Amino acid sequence: MQELTIQIPGTAEQRYPIVIGTGLLPSLWPRLESEVGPHAKFVVTDANLVSAGHLEALLAGRNVPHFAIKPPGEPSKTVQTAVAIVEAMEKACLGRDAVVVALGGGTVGDIAGFAAAIFKRGVPVVQIPTTTLAQADSAIGGKTGVDSSVSKNAFGAFWHPAAVYIDTATLETLDERNYRAGLVESVKHALIADSGYFDFLERHLDEILERKADVLETVAGYNCRIKGAVVAEDPREKNNRRMLNYGHTIGHAVEAASGYELLHGEAVAIGIVAAGLIEAEMGLAEPPRRQRVQSIFERLGVPVTLPPHISEDKVLDLLKHDKKAVGRWPRFVLIARLGEAYTSSGQYAVEVERRTVENVLRKLK
Amino acid sequence: MQELTIQIPGTAEQRYPIVIGTGLLPSLWPRLESEVGPHAKFVVTDANLVSAGHLEALLAGRNVPHFAIKPPGEPSKTVQTAVAIVEAMEKACLGRDAVVVALGGGTVGDIAGFAAAIFKRGVPVVQIPTTTLAQADSAIGGKTGVDSSVSKNAFGAFWHPAAVYIDTATLETLDERNYRAGLVESVKHALIADSGYFDFLERHLDEILERKADVLETVAGYNCRIKGAVVAEDPREKNNRRMLNYGHTIGHAVEAASGYELLHGEAVAIGIVAAGLIEAEMGLAEPPRRQRVQSIFERLGVPVTLPPHISEDKVLDLLKHDKKAVGRWPRFVLIARLGEAYTSSGQYAVEVERRTVENVLRKLK
Repeated sequence: MQELTIQIPGTAEQRYPIVIGTGLLPSLWPRLESEVGPHAKFVVTDANLVSAGHLEALLAGRNVPHFAIKPPGEPSKTVQTAVAIVEAMEKACLGRDAVVVALGGGTVGDIAGFAAAIFKRGVPVVQIPTTTLAQADSAIGGKTGVDSSVSKNAFGAFWHPAAVYIDTATLETLDERNYRAGLVESVKHALIADSGYFDFLERHLDEILERKADVLETVAGYNCRIKGAVVAEDPREKNNRRMLNYGHTIGHAVEAASGYELLHGEAVAIGIVAAGLIEAEMGLAEPPRRQRVQSIFERLGVPVTLPPHISEDKVLDLLKHDKKAVGRWPRFVLIARLGEAYTSSGQYAVEVERRTVENVLRKLK
Repeated sequence: MQELTIQIPGTAEQRYPIVIGTGLLPSLWPRLESEVGPHAKFVVTDANLVSAGHLEALLAGRNVPHFAIKPPGEPSKTVQTAVAIVEAMEKACLGRDAVVVALGGGTVGDIAGFAAAIFKRGVPVVQIPTTTLAQADSAIGGKTGVDSSVSKNAFGAFWHPAAVYIDTATLETLDERNYRAGLVESVKHALIADSGYFDFLERHLDEILERKADVLETVAGYNCRIKGAVVAEDPREKNNRRMLNYGHTIGHAVEAASGYELLHGEAVAIGIVAAGLIEAEMGLAEPPRRQRVQSIFERLGVPVTLPPHISEDKVLDLLKHDKKAVGRWPRFVLIARLGEAYTSSGQYAVEVERRTVENVLRKLK
């Protein structure tokens, strides 16, 4: 078991613990009561977690009010779901001393975190991420949000968790496609911040894919330390934090262009390959590095080219509407070398010519 | 014209200016552009402000996207209105560098502030309060929120403004009843924090009721300094800030018991009179002070007793459901003497026996 502490300057709470272990869930509740306090708790989860038995493992028969998001996944990530959770909390007579416990993947964490942020001007949220994506990425960092009919995360808040408990044993019940796609964020962390971690991932990928507990704990530790350090330096994404967007600018556009048929991690894999091609066009990349990235994604079984039904024009059009676009063209995060994000004049989100991106998208077909 | 700066520890922005003047509105936009920055702006206002000509005075023909809340007032203070504002901002192609400008009374400020807090994880809000209530109270302090079908401010966020511009000339178009009721918060500020301010209010009440510009600017200055100092010390209401709840515990219950037919300030006036009676029961109050409070409220023309159709039982029942209740009974804020909030063991929200409150409610009939 590992324990880390994340320091978030400029927030009311300032710091929160991350606990990583295998098989934490059945004994977590008493620990939570002692660490977070004896406040009334409200668990938000989804139908997948219920049927996998994880909600029952956590509660062990305790009578705790809870809300299971139905259907699980992106289609439920709406402001209406967040409103329904807040109203369920009201009906359970919870007040501003309540604590929300989010048990699930990225969608559960995003929705539950947002509901906690807006319930009576904000109550603490404890994140218990149960997917490779959420454990590597979304449970840490305080980004919460839900979609509108117009765009993703149109509603949201920065709302740092009061604590994060990562039980790698919960990954055992995750379906293979989601399991593999979620690991793309781990590759991203290695690429932007730690070449030693990249070596580790290459060396241990087979064990990771076999879901071996000790290796998964090591992976979680790397992810939390890397993401935690970046977030602590820049909690509200003024600059440094943007490096976490590596592969995400094109990734988000590809994800949307697929009508969300590609999983987030799958689209980000394509985005990371695209970033590598942009780096090559700009003279930043050496070929062996691109080869290693391509190869690890192939071993993960995630896509490295644009699927045939996604046109470059559609992706370009979506890039113009990127939520971080300035003057209808986004900036991009690149790496200077394996383990080090690239900066230009101290900025992590840099200008890339439209023509360069057009060339790269053609090469991605 | 006066300018103050509020320091909010533990927030990303840390400080914001408050500008107080008369007739600021027509020249405010260029100033806003230079002080807040050339970001895309989105104005939230309501039908009253539009018909009073204030929106036109602010925009002076500029083509700025805006949203006029209809109908004005509490019935529109719902999560649906906040969602509609966010979606209108999306349709106006605003991104996370947008700024929301709230032009209006407390309801507009609360809804617009909340919409700004949740739009793409939060964009700045500039408050331009146009009522005695909003200028004295709600525009400063960062509390935002909207109601659910179950309770008031069930949804909300602490979201400090980027700047507050108080134009006392906008008060000229406010109807008499709202004008007078909003002044109750000024009396509250004097009672909890500044006996000299109370003297000033007594001495100048006729001019205040005649809406004389220079006196109104002085009143605004007192309010902002008092509230600003309290909020800066305790932005998230852990203790000190609770003193601003003076008169509000019973006030909120009375407001709800009236089915919101009483205005907020009217209900708080009754709550302040009730607090005075509690102080008397607890041996804290000297009779002349209660006399002065009663007298200033009578000059304001706000109620000082429970209206006949509101039963004590209804008020007691609502007190049990107070959102700050601990163990189904709220704590109360009292004053030790005129200009000084009472503390017990360092706490501003103190225990008062149920029987004492029952006695006081009987006396209020």
